[in-house]
Amino acid sequence: MKKLKDYVTTIPNFPKEGIMFRDVTSVIEDKDGLKLAIDSITQKLEGTDFDIVMAPESRGFIFGMPVAYNLGKGFVPVRKKGKLPRETISEDYALEYGTATLEIHKDSLKPGDKVVIIDDLIATGGTLEAIIRLARRSGAEVVKVVSLIELVDFNVRERISDVEIESVIKYEGE
Amino acid sequence: MKKLKDYVTTIPNFPKEGIMFRDVTSVIEDKDGLKLAIDSITQKLEGTDFDIVMAPESRGFIFGMPVAYNLGKGFVPVRKKGKLPRETISEDYALEYGTATLEIHKDSLKPGDKVVIIDDLIATGGTLEAIIRLARRSGAEVVKVVSLIELVDFNVRERISDVEIESVIKYEGE
Repeated sequence: MKKLKDYVTTIPNFPKEGIMFRDVTSVIEDKDGLKLAIDSITQKLEGTDFDIVMAPESRGFIFGMPVAYNLGKGFVPVRKKGKLPRETISEDYALEYGTATLEIHKDSLKPGDKVVIIDDLIATGGTLEAIIRLARRSGAEVVKVVSLIELVDFNVRERISDVEIESVIKYEGE
Repeated sequence: MKKLKDYVTTIPNFPKEGIMFRDVTSVIEDKDGLKLAIDSITQKLEGTDFDIVMAPESRGFIFGMPVAYNLGKGFVPVRKKGKLPRETISEDYALEYGTATLEIHKDSLKPGDKVVIIDDLIATGGTLEAIIRLARRSGAEVVKVVSLIELVDFNVRERISDVEIESVIKYEGE
């Protein structure tokens, strides 16, 4: 039986020289890969008490929504600047050159909401930090982060030490 | 009991004067709205013989993935130009000013694949046409389109008459 890692395609030097890009489209294009990915993330949340899934545009939507559906939760999409139609709160995060901005609607989370953040891949955790700030500014509590893939060499757990982080597949020194 | 339409927020004059923007974030932020939306789209596909869901970045991902999971299918994300790491095929579609480009990996679909396209909202059908062209260039057959919302005044069914289109919620003359 194929394991989840067998469905991931690695593209060397994308989007630039020296990066080993882990492509998840080959996971979800296969019906068995898709089911395995979603079930694996869902399993990481069994027994976790929470109200809502947050996930960032746009690959986070791919994994966050089916898990929210499976567990009977709501879903707050974290979008790039200017996409949301109502009043928003926003947080910047650093890119290699310059910054980008993530937003949620101001009324998406209520004080006391217990939030789980889901993403396809965690590297440095810059995006993740911005999402955690958005949740906390809304008065919500981030109870867990679950990612399909974690690039261990980037040491996200040193940067974000106050939230539990789980990942289904880890790449280290590869 | 709340109906699906009750969960949609309408924002007048977004993103510009004269547009009544139908916001689906308020549907999915509510766990009951989310379940109702996904179950309603899933129901439209019961009895449909198909292999794979295609959906466009990024709101299409929100509705397409849970439905693909529910029905045990694969999922091909249709992305904006430059996001996919492997060899792609692309199609342009017209925006109000200029054009935008959608892409899939060249090997995502196989000749003979039966495809269902899922999106959050259909208006003129410009995006939809580009996705249909991508599928057909890959040798796949588009058997149905299902959208959560249809803006009937834009007459998509005149523009796209050779594929069955279903929608869960319709707005007409509003």
